[in-house]
Amino acid sequence: MSQPVFVLVRPQMGENIGGAARAMWNFGLDRMRIVDPRDGWPNPRAVALASGAGRLLDEAQLTETTDDAIGDCTYVFATTARARGLTKPVVTPERAMEIAREKIQGGEKVAVLFGPERAGLENDDIARANAIINVPVNPEFASLNLAQCVLLTAYEWRRQAGDVEAERTELAGADWASNVEIQKLSEHYESRLDEAGFFFPETKAEGMKIVLRNLWSRMPLTRSDVQMLHGILRQMVRWKERGE
Amino acid sequence: MSQPVFVLVRPQMGENIGGAARAMWNFGLDRMRIVDPRDGWPNPRAVALASGAGRLLDEAQLTETTDDAIGDCTYVFATTARARGLTKPVVTPERAMEIAREKIQGGEKVAVLFGPERAGLENDDIARANAIINVPVNPEFASLNLAQCVLLTAYEWRRQAGDVEAERTELAGADWASNVEIQKLSEHYESRLDEAGFFFPETKAEGMKIVLRNLWSRMPLTRSDVQMLHGILRQMVRWKERGE
Repeated sequence: MSQPVFVLVRPQMGENIGGAARAMWNFGLDRMRIVDPRDGWPNPRAVALASGAGRLLDEAQLTETTDDAIGDCTYVFATTARARGLTKPVVTPERAMEIAREKIQGGEKVAVLFGPERAGLENDDIARANAIINVPVNPEFASLNLAQCVLLTAYEWRRQAGDVEAERTELAGADWASNVEIQKLSEHYESRLDEAGFFFPETKAEGMKIVLRNLWSRMPLTRSDVQMLHGILRQMVRWKERGE
Repeated sequence: MSQPVFVLVRPQMGENIGGAARAMWNFGLDRMRIVDPRDGWPNPRAVALASGAGRLLDEAQLTETTDDAIGDCTYVFATTARARGLTKPVVTPERAMEIAREKIQGGEKVAVLFGPERAGLENDDIARANAIINVPVNPEFASLNLAQCVLLTAYEWRRQAGDVEAERTELAGADWASNVEIQKLSEHYESRLDEAGFFFPETKAEGMKIVLRNLWSRMPLTRSDVQMLHGILRQMVRWKERGE
């Protein structure tokens, strides 16, 4: 499966280039292009900050202009914090990565432009894009840095892969108790608590027993949970019998 | 509308506390609790790094233990990079924020625990949670820092608010051309290009005209785009007539 290319346009700090590489690789993206980085290339600060994602920098394509970086792409997104009064679709990262996935599956090549840290993309870069990505931040407070913007976009790409289980329970120890084990536990408690005079007054006893039985069956108990609950009850009985 | 509480458990660097506050406030979340921060409280580095989100730190509740921080919560998530062999549901950030929204709408109080930078949450903290949040990072490369983990979780909360339009086109300038304006543009080009001998050979002329008419109607043109396209053609004619 192919993936979008992420293009850093005139990035300033090497640290942020390294951080962007890490952010991408967290979500399995590894195609980076870099347009005219302020401090030249290669950049030792970028390498230091990329740590385990250094391969992305080694393989990054360096170009002088935005045009050179997107020359082979058929669909280009530009990320910006503000809308610029350009007549162009403005999409959420979610919708953008949906579009990217459709286009890539149709054989197209998709790029996402990220601007320099201080000022963001210039209108001249944005005019080259087919659509604008706008992260739906708090209108009173927008303070995403370059690596965070890359991170959210990469996260959306990965999230929509659809191969991640939304919910699972760890198997380790999840040896679930069977219904008969839950029944025996319920009976054990019911009979001992009966002896202990717990179900009082008698007019309410049956109702209390139903509530208790329901409690056991409602709980997601493993076999070792059940053993522990039996043990607790036995120990209370022993304690009482020692008469301390 | 209420929101989840984000709990930073034993955070180490003030910078990261400030970064977490910024990450939250980007997506409109402002209820932070802090358990036993390593460098005491208040922390000037945290304040410096929070910049516009300093109010979250001023209002953050400081507690000594995780239990104190979640005492009033009915549902607690723990974020961890690794599953720990505890029998507990493991959910994506997406599923977690779905659950959080349901519970909060039902009047419950939800907390999300974030661990210290180096080691993450301890099993003792995780055992207090109802479910584990696991960001679906690249199994070969997981390097999310504290603020990034907070950012992704806050982003999911916001994304699911459903009040953000997935796609819109900037209104500025989007004074769309009417069909009759497109028709006139099409006729203008067709007649001038006919004079210029563009539709050649004659056997193909009709097909070429249809392709051209289709081109105009396929484009999302504003009225000012249409004016510009008329102007281009007029200028070309003028240039020719000057005979240079």
